[in-house]
Amino acid sequence: MQTLNKKTMAITKPSIPKGTRDFGSTEMINRNYIFSAIRSVFRKYGYKPIETPAFENLSTLNGKYGEEGDRLIFKILNSGDFLPYLLENFSEGKTSAQFAKHISEKALRYDLTVPFARYVVMHQHEISFPFKRYQIQPVWRADRPQKGRYREFYQCDVDVIGSNSLLNELELIQLTIDIFKKLNISVVIKINNRKILEGFAESLGLMDKFNDFTSILDKFDKITIQETKNELHNKAFADNEIHKIVEVLKNMRQLDSNTKKIDYVKEFCKTSEIGLKGIIEIETIFDYIKSLPVEYSGYLTSGQIEFDFSLARGLNYYTGAIFEVKARNVTMGSISGGGRYDDLTGIFGLPNVSGVGISFGADRIYDVLNELNLFPKNTGVTSQLLFVNLGAVEEKYCLALAAEARIHGINTELFPHTAKLKKQLDYANANHIPYVAIVGTDEMSSNLITVKNMQSGEQMEMNIKKLIELVKGKLF
Amino acid sequence: MQTLNKKTMAITKPSIPKGTRDFGSTEMINRNYIFSAIRSVFRKYGYKPIETPAFENLSTLNGKYGEEGDRLIFKILNSGDFLPYLLENFSEGKTSAQFAKHISEKALRYDLTVPFARYVVMHQHEISFPFKRYQIQPVWRADRPQKGRYREFYQCDVDVIGSNSLLNELELIQLTIDIFKKLNISVVIKINNRKILEGFAESLGLMDKFNDFTSILDKFDKITIQETKNELHNKAFADNEIHKIVEVLKNMRQLDSNTKKIDYVKEFCKTSEIGLKGIIEIETIFDYIKSLPVEYSGYLTSGQIEFDFSLARGLNYYTGAIFEVKARNVTMGSISGGGRYDDLTGIFGLPNVSGVGISFGADRIYDVLNELNLFPKNTGVTSQLLFVNLGAVEEKYCLALAAEARIHGINTELFPHTAKLKKQLDYANANHIPYVAIVGTDEMSSNLITVKNMQSGEQMEMNIKKLIELVKGKLF
Repeated sequence: MQTLNKKTMAITKPSIPKGTRDFGSTEMINRNYIFSAIRSVFRKYGYKPIETPAFENLSTLNGKYGEEGDRLIFKILNSGDFLPYLLENFSEGKTSAQFAKHISEKALRYDLTVPFARYVVMHQHEISFPFKRYQIQPVWRADRPQKGRYREFYQCDVDVIGSNSLLNELELIQLTIDIFKKLNISVVIKINNRKILEGFAESLGLMDKFNDFTSILDKFDKITIQETKNELHNKAFADNEIHKIVEVLKNMRQLDSNTKKIDYVKEFCKTSEIGLKGIIEIETIFDYIKSLPVEYSGYLTSGQIEFDFSLARGLNYYTGAIFEVKARNVTMGSISGGGRYDDLTGIFGLPNVSGVGISFGADRIYDVLNELNLFPKNTGVTSQLLFVNLGAVEEKYCLALAAEARIHGINTELFPHTAKLKKQLDYANANHIPYVAIVGTDEMSSNLITVKNMQSGEQMEMNIKKLIELVKGKLF
Repeated sequence: MQTLNKKTMAITKPSIPKGTRDFGSTEMINRNYIFSAIRSVFRKYGYKPIETPAFENLSTLNGKYGEEGDRLIFKILNSGDFLPYLLENFSEGKTSAQFAKHISEKALRYDLTVPFARYVVMHQHEISFPFKRYQIQPVWRADRPQKGRYREFYQCDVDVIGSNSLLNELELIQLTIDIFKKLNISVVIKINNRKILEGFAESLGLMDKFNDFTSILDKFDKITIQETKNELHNKAFADNEIHKIVEVLKNMRQLDSNTKKIDYVKEFCKTSEIGLKGIIEIETIFDYIKSLPVEYSGYLTSGQIEFDFSLARGLNYYTGAIFEVKARNVTMGSISGGGRYDDLTGIFGLPNVSGVGISFGADRIYDVLNELNLFPKNTGVTSQLLFVNLGAVEEKYCLALAAEARIHGINTELFPHTAKLKKQLDYANANHIPYVAIVGTDEMSSNLITVKNMQSGEQMEMNIKKLIELVKGKLF
C-alpha cells in the first residue's frame, strides 16, 4: 500500500480563507429573500441601481477610513516585477506597510460609500441631481474573523446625493420601516444628529475632545456608569468634565419620551448655535413623520422611532442626521445605520454636495430572521417535480413529458440515469421535491403517470395535463 | 487665483482600474434582464444556486489554469509583514513571480469551475448526488484589457456533477435553447467530443502532438488553409502530417449535414476505440434531441445544432462532450461554452466524479443584445410617478399622497426640495418618469391633482384614486 505523503495531501486538501463562507442553495435562497425585499422597497422610492468594480485604485481608498481602516484594506499585488523596486529602495527601519503601496496599486472595496462618492464625481456630467441610487454588493475587510463578523460580507446601501432637504432623511426612515415590515422584523429606529453632539460638547467645553467624547457616548448603552467614568478617565478627561458628562447621561436616561429628551437637550444647548440647528432638524423630521399615514407615524407613538442623544456611530464623516436600527426581541448589534454627510465627494474634487444614506447589513438581518425563525417556509424548494428514470425506453418517454411540464412553468427534473427507485426517491426527499412522477411499462401503455406526493406518501394515476394542474395547486 | 497643483490634483482625481467598469442604472437593469432570464431557466431544470467567496486560497487556484492562467490570477497581498521573508530569502536571479506566493496566500476567483470543484469536495457529505448547481458571480483576470475583454466580468455557470449519463448533456442543450429563446437571440449550438478529437489524432498518428493539433483545429474557422499550414509547420508537424490534416479539414468543410459529418468521422476513426466511443456519444445525444418536442428537435433540422469536428476550446480538462454557442446575425466570439470533465474534483482528493457544465458569458450576451437592439424598452424606468415640490405646505400634503401611491405598488418619488417647476420636470425627463403630479394651492383646495403625461405633454385633473389607476394602466 502506498504511504500517504502528508505534505502533498496538505496542498490539495481544500479549504477556504478564514472569514469567508460558501453559500449553499438554502442560504442563497434565504439571502435572496432579503435582497429582494430590500431592493423592491428601494425601487418603490425611486432609487436606481448601480454597481462599481470589486477593486478600486488603492489611492481611491487609502486614507478614507482612518488608520485602522487603511490596515484592514485588502491590497492586490501588482502583476509586474516588484523586486527591483524593493531592492533599490529598501533601507533599515522601513516597514512592510510602507512598501505595500509600491507593490500594490489596487485594493478590494472596503465599503460602498467611498466608491459611490468616486462614482458620483467621475460621472457627474451624466447624472441628474438629486441622484438617488442603491447598491447591493459585497465588501471585504481584513478584520479578525469572529462570530457574526466576516471578511467578505454584503452591504445594501441607499443614498441620495445633491439635496440637503430633510425630506430625504424622512424618506430613508419611511423606507426603513417598509423594509423591516416586509421582512416581519420588529425594529426600533434610533435617530440623532451630529450637530446636537457638537452642541453638547460645546456647552460642556469639550470640543477639543470631541471624538473621544462621542465614541464613549456611543458605548453608553452597552456599559455601566462606572465603566463610562473609567473610560473618560483613561481618555484624560478632567474630573469635573467627567462629573458633568455623567450627570447629563444619567438625566437623559430618566427621560421617557422623544419630546422630553428634545426639550432637555434644547435647554442644555441653548447657547450653542450649532446645537440648536441640530434640534431644529430633529424636530422637522419628527414633524414630517407625524404628517404621514399611521403606518409610519405610528412608529412615533409606539416608541419605535427614538431620539437617542448618545448615538454617534464610528464614522467621522456624518455631519447631520445619524440613524441606527435595532431588531427587537433579539440580542444583536445594529442591523442598519447611516446618516448625512456634507462633504464626501470633496475628497475627489467635487465640493459642496450634500448626501444622506443608510446601509442595511444583510448578514445580520439574516441572523435575525434565522434566530426568530422568520424565513418563509419552502423557499428551499427549487424543483417541484421529479420524473424517475426506470430505463432507456422510459427515460426517452419521460423527456417529452418533462419538457411539457417545464413549458407550463413547472420546475422539473428527470433523474439523469437509471437507478433503484429508492435511490431516486431519496434524491427527491433530499432536495425537497414535493412530487415524483413514476413512469414504467404499465404507465406508458395506459398513457398515465403514477404520481407520488412525497409529503403524504399518497400515489395516484393521472395524465400529464392533470399532473401539471396538480403541481400548480389547481387540482384540489 | 490659485494655481492648480497638478500633482495634488492627480492624487485625488478619481479613476477606476483599467479593465474594470462602473455600471449605471440602465446597464444594471439590462444586465439583470439577462441574469433573470438565465436564472429562471436554470431553476426550471432544477439547478440550485450556490456562491463561493471572491477570493480563494492561492493554493486552490495555482496550477489549475496552465502557466498562462497562473500569471493572470490576481493575488492578494498578505496583511502581515512580508519584508523579513523577502530579505532573508532573496538571492541573485530570483524573480518576483517566485516570491509572489510567499507574500500572498489568497487570490481572486479566476473562474467558477475550480471553486465549484473545491466546493463539491469540501461539502461532499452534505450534497446528495447528482448535484445540479448554478452559480452567477464575477471573476477576475489580469488579462490585457481590450474591446469586449475585461478584468472583471460575470460568468453564469451551470453544472451537474456525479452522473455520467448523457441525459445531462442533452439537458444542457435544452436549457441553452430555452435561455436564448427567452432572450430572442438566434443561436447555433456547436457540439464536439474530446474522444473524437483523440480518435482523429490516433488515426493520424498524432497523439504525441495532441494539444498543438487541437489548438490549431480550434482556429480552423477563423484562419485560411494557408495559415493553418503555416501554423502546423511552426509547431513542427511533418509535411506528410500537415498534408493529411489539411485534407481532412478540406473534406469536412464540404460536408453539409451532421449525418454526413458523423459518417465521415466514423469511417475515418474506425480503428480507434476511443474515437468510436465519442461517435456513439454524439449519436446518442442527437438521438435524444430527435425524441424531444419540435421546440428542441427543430434545432437539428434547421442546422442550429451542429456537429463541429474542429471545436476543441482552450481548456484541457474536457474529456467528453464539448459545447460552444454562437449568436447568428452578429460578429462575436462564442457567447457560451462548456463540456464534460471526468476528473475535476480529483485534484482536491475526490476522484472518479464526472461532471458536465456550460458557462454563459453575460458580457458578450449583453453586447449581442445591444447590437441587435433586443433589450426590452422601458426597462430603464425606475419611478413611475413624481410629485413635484412647490413649497413647505404642498410637500407635506404630497407626502401622504406619495405614501398612498406606494402602498398601491407604484414606484413614486417626491422631489426632495422646492425648486422651479421646469427644473423638476427636467428631472422627471432625465429619469424617464412617465407621470408627474402637480399639487399647488388650487389642487389642495379642490382635493384634486394635476397630472402631466410626460410623453404626450397632456395635463388632466383627477383624485388620487384615479391617478393610481392611471399609472397602473387601468384607466383607459
